[in-house]
Amino acid sequence: MDEFSIIREYFTRQIVRRDDVAIGVGDDGAVLVPQPDLDLVSTTDMLLEGIHFPATTEPYAIGYKALAVNLSDLAAMGAKPVWVTLALSLPAPNFAWIKAFAAGFLELAADYQVQLVGGDLCRGPLVVAVHAMGYVARNQAILRSGAEIGDAIFISGQLGDAGMALKVVQEHVSVSVEERTRVIRRLEFPQPRVDFGQAIVGVAHAAIDVSDGLYADLGHIVLSSNVAARVELDSIPVSDDYKKYATELGWETALCGGDDYELCFVAPLSQEQEIKSIAHRLGTPVTKIGRIEAGQGVHVLASDGVEFVPHYKGHDHFAI
Amino acid sequence: MDEFSIIREYFTRQIVRRDDVAIGVGDDGAVLVPQPDLDLVSTTDMLLEGIHFPATTEPYAIGYKALAVNLSDLAAMGAKPVWVTLALSLPAPNFAWIKAFAAGFLELAADYQVQLVGGDLCRGPLVVAVHAMGYVARNQAILRSGAEIGDAIFISGQLGDAGMALKVVQEHVSVSVEERTRVIRRLEFPQPRVDFGQAIVGVAHAAIDVSDGLYADLGHIVLSSNVAARVELDSIPVSDDYKKYATELGWETALCGGDDYELCFVAPLSQEQEIKSIAHRLGTPVTKIGRIEAGQGVHVLASDGVEFVPHYKGHDHFAI
Repeated sequence: MDEFSIIREYFTRQIVRRDDVAIGVGDDGAVLVPQPDLDLVSTTDMLLEGIHFPATTEPYAIGYKALAVNLSDLAAMGAKPVWVTLALSLPAPNFAWIKAFAAGFLELAADYQVQLVGGDLCRGPLVVAVHAMGYVARNQAILRSGAEIGDAIFISGQLGDAGMALKVVQEHVSVSVEERTRVIRRLEFPQPRVDFGQAIVGVAHAAIDVSDGLYADLGHIVLSSNVAARVELDSIPVSDDYKKYATELGWETALCGGDDYELCFVAPLSQEQEIKSIAHRLGTPVTKIGRIEAGQGVHVLASDGVEFVPHYKGHDHFAI
Repeated sequence: MDEFSIIREYFTRQIVRRDDVAIGVGDDGAVLVPQPDLDLVSTTDMLLEGIHFPATTEPYAIGYKALAVNLSDLAAMGAKPVWVTLALSLPAPNFAWIKAFAAGFLELAADYQVQLVGGDLCRGPLVVAVHAMGYVARNQAILRSGAEIGDAIFISGQLGDAGMALKVVQEHVSVSVEERTRVIRRLEFPQPRVDFGQAIVGVAHAAIDVSDGLYADLGHIVLSSNVAARVELDSIPVSDDYKKYATELGWETALCGGDDYELCFVAPLSQEQEIKSIAHRLGTPVTKIGRIEAGQGVHVLASDGVEFVPHYKGHDHFAI
């Protein structure tokens, strides 16, 4: 079986056939027919074995996550995902592996009516590079740079389980089999906040998805917006699993562990009811965790007023 | 220096600022404002050290080629390149390497007014994944599937120098220093036929860029179009350097070596004068090499009528 047969067999049998795709997989490029009067959001993320996922990760989970992290970026801009391409390098033509990988990728794509419109396949180290595009109303994309003094800071879902899972895998924390299964599921199958991201367009002033840890990612918002953030440590939402091991994990894992893929966003206090209403309608938990102030940096304060200063400020591949 | 500083330092100081880019590098995604009434062509290609380029390749050449092969795909569809993203994994933060890589990539981008609108940077094996987009008039993209019986087959430029360069690097052919420099330049700096591809929109029935060798790539056209190709072996255009070593290289290298990135296209014979006129205007050599017939497959015939049957049918990462 050659490259082209593999692509035909596993990657062109997707369910999604969008009207705005004139030519999909199989030519030198796809031909797309963008809807008029909408902006397009473009994002790309590369995942490497041993860096973004452990070598033991199941191919289904790798395929899922490679798409999920890109959908999460679109969600953070308020965009509705539509088209995706996949460049995949893998060591050997293991068909069971490819089939499971494709299933993880394409099932998530089908959930959001995203069409795979092209790709590249070669032999080499295990590397997955995804490019995703989405629609957003003209000039309505939610940027990092729109935070204003007085805005409230919100976070979707809970933080820390993905970071906890890494500590469990690395055997820094010892947990029960059920707890292990739950937190690893959170690490391997992050839920991109696609619907929620679109729902807060026109409501949120700024947003980012938490891939490198809240501390680092909220740091991007305040830097881009030229403001400061004050976060109440006690308000950070964590899971019951996390709470049980809070002593071992500390706040560090919840604030500086990455891979949660929740949305951190800021909005005027006057929008708080509207945000609660959206959260309720979509079944997405949302917690207010702080506010935007004049100044710079992210300041996380315990209830006694002592500032939490992380040792590890978030994942950075190139810190030297 | 961290990932964000590297991106700021080397990748956001590009010259190109397009009007159809609302938000470029630096947020969760770029915000693009596509021109109305045009289709978009999307393509992606991944390059791996040791597979798509030798480990000895200079970073400037790697940056150039990573973009060039994607522009070549857009050219084969008749599209005008506009936006590109770059996902880059590399072993260590070697700033001189990154600077040279970025220069090779961004200088070619500037030549065609292509804007880098996003990317990803991580540490790992040397892998470059590029996604490129271009405009083409509505329903006018040149596909692989449009070849018709009676069409003439054309090729831009010359074939074989890139394949010859690989044989020189692998020391299968021994040449002079000047010849080595010339053919390696052809391998490392393929010229994507961007202007020519756009010029043959409405003229060509089908096109493909020659990345895997003419034999394999013309094979994609005939398979997609459900026709056969008859190619006159003596008409294949090769360089003087190639001719000089034709005995060692045979026809195999010119027909089945990849990496030439010329355009192979088919058009009605009635368009031959128009094609010559376009070729003259753009300074792009074009040669008629055969015709489309009923049947299937690619048939390459010597002047004595004997069919050339390649041993090696083109690069396939997954042939087993």
